[in-house]
Amino acid sequence: MDEEKVIEKITKFIENKRIKNLREYLKTINSADFPSIFESVDEDKIIMIYRLLSKEKAAEVFVELEHDNQEKLIGYLTDTEIKNVMNEIYMDDAVDLIEEMPSNVVKRILTNTKPANRKIINELLKYPDDTAGTLMTTEFIDLKENMTVADAFEFIKKKALKKETVYNCYVLTIDRKLLGIIDIKDLLVADRDKLIKDIMDTNVIKVNTLEDQEEVARMFDKYNYVALPVVDQENRLVGIITIDDAIDVIQEEATEDFEKMAAITPDDDNDSYLKTGVFKHAKSRIIWLLILMLSAMLTGQVIENFEAAISTLPLLVAFIPMIMDTGGNCGSQASTLIIRGLAMNELSTKDIFKAIWKELRVSIVVGIVLAIANSIRIMVQYHDIKIAIVVGITLICTVMMAKLLGCVLPMIAKKLKLDPAIMAAPLITTIVDTLSVLVFFNIATLIFNI
Amino acid sequence: MDEEKVIEKITKFIENKRIKNLREYLKTINSADFPSIFESVDEDKIIMIYRLLSKEKAAEVFVELEHDNQEKLIGYLTDTEIKNVMNEIYMDDAVDLIEEMPSNVVKRILTNTKPANRKIINELLKYPDDTAGTLMTTEFIDLKENMTVADAFEFIKKKALKKETVYNCYVLTIDRKLLGIIDIKDLLVADRDKLIKDIMDTNVIKVNTLEDQEEVARMFDKYNYVALPVVDQENRLVGIITIDDAIDVIQEEATEDFEKMAAITPDDDNDSYLKTGVFKHAKSRIIWLLILMLSAMLTGQVIENFEAAISTLPLLVAFIPMIMDTGGNCGSQASTLIIRGLAMNELSTKDIFKAIWKELRVSIVVGIVLAIANSIRIMVQYHDIKIAIVVGITLICTVMMAKLLGCVLPMIAKKLKLDPAIMAAPLITTIVDTLSVLVFFNIATLIFNI
Repeated sequence: MDEEKVIEKITKFIENKRIKNLREYLKTINSADFPSIFESVDEDKIIMIYRLLSKEKAAEVFVELEHDNQEKLIGYLTDTEIKNVMNEIYMDDAVDLIEEMPSNVVKRILTNTKPANRKIINELLKYPDDTAGTLMTTEFIDLKENMTVADAFEFIKKKALKKETVYNCYVLTIDRKLLGIIDIKDLLVADRDKLIKDIMDTNVIKVNTLEDQEEVARMFDKYNYVALPVVDQENRLVGIITIDDAIDVIQEEATEDFEKMAAITPDDDNDSYLKTGVFKHAKSRIIWLLILMLSAMLTGQVIENFEAAISTLPLLVAFIPMIMDTGGNCGSQASTLIIRGLAMNELSTKDIFKAIWKELRVSIVVGIVLAIANSIRIMVQYHDIKIAIVVGITLICTVMMAKLLGCVLPMIAKKLKLDPAIMAAPLITTIVDTLSVLVFFNIATLIFNI
Repeated sequence: MDEEKVIEKITKFIENKRIKNLREYLKTINSADFPSIFESVDEDKIIMIYRLLSKEKAAEVFVELEHDNQEKLIGYLTDTEIKNVMNEIYMDDAVDLIEEMPSNVVKRILTNTKPANRKIINELLKYPDDTAGTLMTTEFIDLKENMTVADAFEFIKKKALKKETVYNCYVLTIDRKLLGIIDIKDLLVADRDKLIKDIMDTNVIKVNTLEDQEEVARMFDKYNYVALPVVDQENRLVGIITIDDAIDVIQEEATEDFEKMAAITPDDDNDSYLKTGVFKHAKSRIIWLLILMLSAMLTGQVIENFEAAISTLPLLVAFIPMIMDTGGNCGSQASTLIIRGLAMNELSTKDIFKAIWKELRVSIVVGIVLAIANSIRIMVQYHDIKIAIVVGITLICTVMMAKLLGCVLPMIAKKLKLDPAIMAAPLITTIVDTLSVLVFFNIATLIFNI
């Protein structure tokens, strides 16, 4: 979609009062394109455009909007219009909406929701954050094992419009226990008089309502399904999670890891960068900055202890930034690879010794190359072999320490059931800084006999 | 799946020569679970297990395996068995396989591929890396606009087994131009005598064969489809991309950005951490380490220039690590948020002034808080108001510089059509280091009149 052109066209229709043409034109625009259109037109136009949409599309567009625009829009909508939206949207989207709106808006939404749906929403709201229960929706196709394929088609024809997906159908017992699953493809190729129980797949990959959402996303990635059934402790099917929600989780978890790697405290609101306020930005950044600043002071204290060495040989100070940065970079390389490997399930804490062995060898190779490059440069610039030796040995030690800590600390965090990402680059860097400066000055005092 | 239990069970079946039971048991294991099983059993058992699988499942399992295990397995398979795999797998998987195998294996694979498929594979191999063309497969359901719904069901029943997905069907003209798309749900709820052209959706979201894979993944994320049609320059439908491939791209791109943020050069082989060799690991890390080491030397040179100041007031040196780390952390916070925002399409280069304005205000808040915290600590520890002032002012300047550079540089990179992630934390850190040390010593010489 060429957004500017679309907006220009819409504006022209409105200016020329060609409402009928506008209504037709809006039909050709995908629901997912409306949020960015609404960002670029005036508020009075938003409500006007919104009211020209069909009932189904209005609900679809509503779900796609960002929370602040949803809230604004609800302010303009009549009770009947809100009822409409709440009748059309899927339960997982309803729960998302209610979780994000302020309480007065929530009250208005719930008053305009059918009692049956209100009950479902309340049930779904009870699941702990970030579990399968909060991701799932309750609109799925449930078949019985003794239906024929023809029966199933009849059933689907009647029910499908109100279901989030027909791609996978679920076969349940009378007391709603999950017996099997049928991909719509298998239904479509089967003869019409076959029984459901003869074509269903009984090796069902399913998740429990309390399963962590990260694990749910990993299962989608691994098994390539478009929906996963969610069962309670008694194996009763209570909902399904569709792959679009899994993709959101994947993106969200990656964003969280990016933020942690950059010493930012992630928050639960997924507001975009520009929509997040200045103080919220500051708040999410300041905690780690303070912690890391305090730990960096430790490095300063170490340097202070070697004041004598510095007075004797002030040149030493010039190598501090290089040693600190190299240590930090080596550490963050290792910790990033390990954290990402753990997140992608390519690595587990069982592999810790294999990982240490790998990092040990890598760090020797890398350390030697860096030490050689540095020694050459020092010989060229300062013609001082002693300094070259001190810096070279320090570099090799620093690289090895940095890589080993970068490898071990995230694994230990994971083993302690902490998020490995707290052991990301910034913290590793600060730890390695102190250690490498310590090594540097100790080797220097030793070799120069200061 | 409890992997250890499964492997134990399989091993027992083999030991007791209960092959029939093993064959039955293997049917209950999902294809996606075989790779990790194959990692844990001996090679002779792998080929034995593999040969007990049904034709379809053998092909499915083969596709799921990691490349090194695929290569090993091919070494054991007969020509007939390879033919089998190549007949069963989808064309996108065939292309992946051929791209990853050494040339002697490729030759053997192609000899055992039907000429028609060989032609398709060769066509697909011609698309440039990382484009929609390399992701797509050619097995989709193509309907004609004058078919009835009943005709369509007949057609799907005959063709579906060999198609990667039936969830979306495509309506083509005689010369294979894309007219419309039908979600299988709409087909299932429609009356059997309706015409396809009356129920198809003509607002088709599609991609061009040469579209970048990152953009393709973004479209999946935005539009929530399970498949996207791929057309050539003449709007002829040449393939489809399914959502599982889009998820792989999302994961791959996130991993690449993580690596770039940690000064690692990503490579094209997606080998896991443990499968990547020591020298390959070292190679992908050493380039940036050398570049960043050289730039860190600049900071060292700056310090050298202030040797007089250091001799007069050696205490100054103790603050260098803290100032450098804080600058680095502030810069990486800003650059990470901007890089991720750009990657997720929440930000565009048009927003540069909005982003600068935001970072400016955030950096003033953060800078002042950090300066106050530091001044208090300096007053407590050293009772020296002049040092407190120097460090405080330096911190505020450093935070502002770091945040502004962290915000502007990735945006400029994007504007220049470079990957914004090259302006990630490590490079920003080195730039900010030099600048902040420069500011620090200049302010210090000014205030202390050194």
